[in-house]
Amino acid sequence: MERTPVAIVGASGYVGAELVRLLVRHPHVLLRGLYAHRHAGHEIAKDYPQFAGIVQATYEVFDAEAVARDCEIAFLALPHGESARAAEALHQRGVTVLDLSADLRLRSAAVYAEWYGDHHAPSLLPHAVYGLVERHREALRTARLVAVPGCYPTAAILALAPLLDARLIAPDGIIIDAKSGTTGAGREPQRSTHFSEIGEGVRAYKVAGHRHTPEIEQELERAAGKLLRLTFTPHLIPMTRGILATCYALPVDPARPAQAYADELRRTYADEPFVTVVDHAPDTAHLRGSNRVQVAAFYDARTGRVIVMGAIDNLVKGAAGQAVQCLNVLRGWPETTALDGGAIFP
Amino acid sequence: MERTPVAIVGASGYVGAELVRLLVRHPHVLLRGLYAHRHAGHEIAKDYPQFAGIVQATYEVFDAEAVARDCEIAFLALPHGESARAAEALHQRGVTVLDLSADLRLRSAAVYAEWYGDHHAPSLLPHAVYGLVERHREALRTARLVAVPGCYPTAAILALAPLLDARLIAPDGIIIDAKSGTTGAGREPQRSTHFSEIGEGVRAYKVAGHRHTPEIEQELERAAGKLLRLTFTPHLIPMTRGILATCYALPVDPARPAQAYADELRRTYADEPFVTVVDHAPDTAHLRGSNRVQVAAFYDARTGRVIVMGAIDNLVKGAAGQAVQCLNVLRGWPETTALDGGAIFP
Amino acid sequence: MERTPVAIVGASGYVGAELVRLLVRHPHVLLRGLYAHRHAGHEIAKDYPQFAGIVQATYEVFDAEAVARDCEIAFLALPHGESARAAEALHQRGVTVLDLSADLRLRSAAVYAEWYGDHHAPSLLPHAVYGLVERHREALRTARLVAVPGCYPTAAILALAPLLDARLIAPDGIIIDAKSGTTGAGREPQRSTHFSEIGEGVRAYKVAGHRHTPEIEQELERAAGKLLRLTFTPHLIPMTRGILATCYALPVDPARPAQAYADELRRTYADEPFVTVVDHAPDTAHLRGSNRVQVAAFYDARTGRVIVMGAIDNLVKGAAGQAVQCLNVLRGWPETTALDGGAIFP
Amino acid sequence: MERTPVAIVGASGYVGAELVRLLVRHPHVLLRGLYAHRHAGHEIAKDYPQFAGIVQATYEVFDAEAVARDCEIAFLALPHGESARAAEALHQRGVTVLDLSADLRLRSAAVYAEWYGDHHAPSLLPHAVYGLVERHREALRTARLVAVPGCYPTAAILALAPLLDARLIAPDGIIIDAKSGTTGAGREPQRSTHFSEIGEGVRAYKVAGHRHTPEIEQELERAAGKLLRLTFTPHLIPMTRGILATCYALPVDPARPAQAYADELRRTYADEPFVTVVDHAPDTAHLRGSNRVQVAAFYDARTGRVIVMGAIDNLVKGAAGQAVQCLNVLRGWPETTALDGGAIFP
Repeated sequence: MERTPVAIVGASGYVGAELVRLLVRHPHVLLRGLYAHRHAGHEIAKDYPQFAGIVQATYEVFDAEAVARDCEIAFLALPHGESARAAEALHQRGVTVLDLSADLRLRSAAVYAEWYGDHHAPSLLPHAVYGLVERHREALRTARLVAVPGCYPTAAILALAPLLDARLIAPDGIIIDAKSGTTGAGREPQRSTHFSEIGEGVRAYKVAGHRHTPEIEQELERAAGKLLRLTFTPHLIPMTRGILATCYALPVDPARPAQAYADELRRTYADEPFVTVVDHAPDTAHLRGSNRVQVAAFYDARTGRVIVMGAIDNLVKGAAGQAVQCLNVLRGWPETTALDGGAIFP
Repeated sequence: MERTPVAIVGASGYVGAELVRLLVRHPHVLLRGLYAHRHAGHEIAKDYPQFAGIVQATYEVFDAEAVARDCEIAFLALPHGESARAAEALHQRGVTVLDLSADLRLRSAAVYAEWYGDHHAPSLLPHAVYGLVERHREALRTARLVAVPGCYPTAAILALAPLLDARLIAPDGIIIDAKSGTTGAGREPQRSTHFSEIGEGVRAYKVAGHRHTPEIEQELERAAGKLLRLTFTPHLIPMTRGILATCYALPVDPARPAQAYADELRRTYADEPFVTVVDHAPDTAHLRGSNRVQVAAFYDARTGRVIVMGAIDNLVKGAAGQAVQCLNVLRGWPETTALDGGAIFP
Repeated sequence: MERTPVAIVGASGYVGAELVRLLVRHPHVLLRGLYAHRHAGHEIAKDYPQFAGIVQATYEVFDAEAVARDCEIAFLALPHGESARAAEALHQRGVTVLDLSADLRLRSAAVYAEWYGDHHAPSLLPHAVYGLVERHREALRTARLVAVPGCYPTAAILALAPLLDARLIAPDGIIIDAKSGTTGAGREPQRSTHFSEIGEGVRAYKVAGHRHTPEIEQELERAAGKLLRLTFTPHLIPMTRGILATCYALPVDPARPAQAYADELRRTYADEPFVTVVDHAPDTAHLRGSNRVQVAAFYDARTGRVIVMGAIDNLVKGAAGQAVQCLNVLRGWPETTALDGGAIFP
Repeated sequence: MERTPVAIVGASGYVGAELVRLLVRHPHVLLRGLYAHRHAGHEIAKDYPQFAGIVQATYEVFDAEAVARDCEIAFLALPHGESARAAEALHQRGVTVLDLSADLRLRSAAVYAEWYGDHHAPSLLPHAVYGLVERHREALRTARLVAVPGCYPTAAILALAPLLDARLIAPDGIIIDAKSGTTGAGREPQRSTHFSEIGEGVRAYKVAGHRHTPEIEQELERAAGKLLRLTFTPHLIPMTRGILATCYALPVDPARPAQAYADELRRTYADEPFVTVVDHAPDTAHLRGSNRVQVAAFYDARTGRVIVMGAIDNLVKGAAGQAVQCLNVLRGWPETTALDGGAIFP
């Protein structure tokens, strides 16, 4: 089978590097171009020495024409705002776009504007499919424009949505208390992710204001069939990879047996290649480097509260791996192609 | 002034060692005896090399008679169950006891039995004062038997109780999502705190079943003036010290201004020597090695949810430091004696 | 092509789990049996939740007969001593053995006895091939008994041996100062690898007495063509995976140009699939999860000292990956089969 | 006793903050001014939340006149180059200066120029006393200008110098392989100390070129009574504080008993308040937050090599604590004033 030529635009960040790691092992893909404005001319193995001896490539300045000429697929790992413009340029030229920024995730340009500022390509929004495969597999098969979900949304939605689908939990009053490693903050050095500052402490950030909130709400509203508002509090902890979303909800019917919630998750995910329902609290350490998800549900009978957890590797299932999973689906390749490795533990 | 002779019973664990660290700097205390059954005969500086050249002492087998003869004060850092018996033996002999186990914290032996098993000295319970100085300072001045609070309860109660006192938040539906370093699990090696297992992941544990739950409820009920049931989920994260309690509650009156909650905390803690209300999400890194507490309150206007946070060092304000603070209060010494050091950051 | 049935004996430790991770992706291997005495009857996914949904298998009690009947290949990840006995039983029954313990590494039973105690199967020693593929590839092609090298020796030998081969450095006075993550110490909880003890410090251990010393000496003697004694100091640092060996040696001819040492490494490793010579100090972070090695050489002109470094992932190239590499060689499969993934960084 | 007014110039970095932590507890010191150019106008508790509720002060722009008018003592925690100028301005105005930069450490402006560039105040050099109290206590009693030693030199010199003094080890061929936490690199965010980059790896840096090399050589030459050149390789490891120097040397007389080296250290440090000779490999974790030093010496009889180790907290004994120790000596205060706390472990 001939390999499909693909480009990574914004290839110099952690998500870009993770895409490279996954795609060099993909049997149906030919990594054709790595684009990174500020690093143009650098060899990737100089910036990321893990590729020394494995990947020989040099970052180039992005040029939509060149990408359209050489590649059928483009992954965009750009900052929001910038990504919408690149997506538009490539979409118009017939390139299938998998956008890992937030630009295509929200269906409403107005909601986008509230959280991110004016949208640069609102006309794209109706064409974008939200790339959470477990929720939108059918639509993705024919997608030409994919909004790859955010890391926190992936962990939270996969944990909560099946229980909303099944009307087991109430849409109102959901709380998501999430814990993330530092790679979600990117490669740009800053005080908040300086080792000496974060190496031995934990803290919340963007309390009541993180931009992933409306993205989670949008998908959960779709599951619940009604509008909802949820509280989302992300925390930064001293590890590089991993997101754990601990979610709290009220049961619709407190009389249901305690195992009803986990049973529903098991039913939902029985045939999913990447999602496992575990009967203990999942540990992000068991997902590192893998595209897998572990979810679990508990019922606190004393307080009548449902507790659901989702754990992922933020750079894989929360970004690059999920994008490759989307690619596999829209190309009709086996969904686990290049994503079959188990986690690196310990 | 003559120094008061004190004993530490159960001195070989992390809390015991932390008591030693604090008490060797205490100008009114003479560290008279270190008791540790299984380590009897060991020099402390062999077990804890940080004391080499500073503390010359050998662990002994506990003997209530000897302690009563030599010491006026005993700190107990024993496992629950065992602690009640030692407390009883010492209390009967006139020694003032500061018990760092859970044995004297719950007022009801029946509630204790639900969570810990049969109580070994229920007759002590009416005499014990809960040693959260910021909440029970007056009673502590004359206490002879102090139940030093648990680490999670300290962080959670100091964050939530003032808002319940002031009837700003509803007693029902409180959720406490807490994150702890590994020292809370003690020095005994076990898989869950083996570096290779915990070094790069985060997970919840004892979901809907952690024994600190009734202790937090008891104190918050006292604040709220009514019974309450809360959801408490502790998480283990890759750091040695620190507890962050992220607490979620509903406002009694959603029309109150957003800053009402932080204002109330500021009013409450204006004169407290160890508690600071900060206007950002507190970071446990800023409390390491110190007896201080940082609390903060936020109002999420989109969802009508109050978010309150408390951060401490679990071994200091969550254990040994708090016990010394109690001692200072009951002896009438300045409350910050031997506890005045700022945190070690970075 | 039919898959070759293989067994892992001692499958419950970290090396065993890493073998499982690698072998489930191996296209020519059928993982037939997982043996682990104390865990017999456990599902592997209970002990190692990263395999939940991926590997369904139960540990069994080791039985040489059963292994010989069902498998052509056995990986032994057992404690030393125990491993020799299992190796003997399997070798006698015609199973090809890849032993990851120290039992078959030293050619001399007398040297073994000095460091480990009496050898339990000295008759095997003449038949064992030292499984450092880059040094013994030809012999491995027909090996039936492979002594997979230790983690420290792998990093140190690959850095130093080419310079001894080429007579660029003196065999006398070599110093190896090595730094290791905690996984090298295994899964058994112990104080030295308890998170609270090791999480924020660094220290040497087994100074002038680590058992990998004679193994390194044996291979370097082979390179140097003469006996040598070297100083080896391992250190434990707060990370899970990775070994860095910083090696110091005297040049044979101080007049050689500074780049002579790195040039020799480049010449040696030009065609090696797993070894890259880098021009900066290698970082173990860039090798995590991969079978790759990074080496570098420097000349300190001020002091006339050669500094050579080798970095690996101790569980992959230092154990399980190296064993799979040996298997690929002795079966004539492409050497990188199942080992082609790049490192997980960050 | 009246308190001595002191200034900290360059107070916004980690060393400055550590000086604040120590000096607020110093009974004879009045912290009069905190100077930090780029942070002028900021409250220190905003930049370092560990001081919230403890230290109320605002950074100011440095002004030598104002410092000379208000303070008797100035600690300089400035970048090299800048520090020499400030030291000169203050020295001329009669202020006693404790300089924590490298500017006054090397006696020769020519050697300084080789490693750092032109010296900005060479006329100061003859007046500066090297502030390693254990080596220069007498000279420090009357010093007006103190060059507080670097972190690596402190650990290495305290380990090696006594053995050179006693002619037990050879001055030639010394190797220092050092491991440091990240705080030595300061608070300025950069890729090399970004959590995601350094959190799970170890690597050497500035191989054969670290600027602390001539400083160590200068002091060891003084001990040895002859010129020497040594190899120094620093490594960065994933922890915030701590330096371990593992030093290798040849014995002058291989026939000496193995314990001769540790015995000599014990003799040397018998009356030192901060140095302890331990009989195991010291762990930096046992020194965190303390001004103490642990040293140990071993003899590897197989190879005839002496191995000496020194462990410190780089921000305390390696910087701020050592400066306060110098101040205590030159003021005639008890040497441990404000430095008596034991380490924070675990």
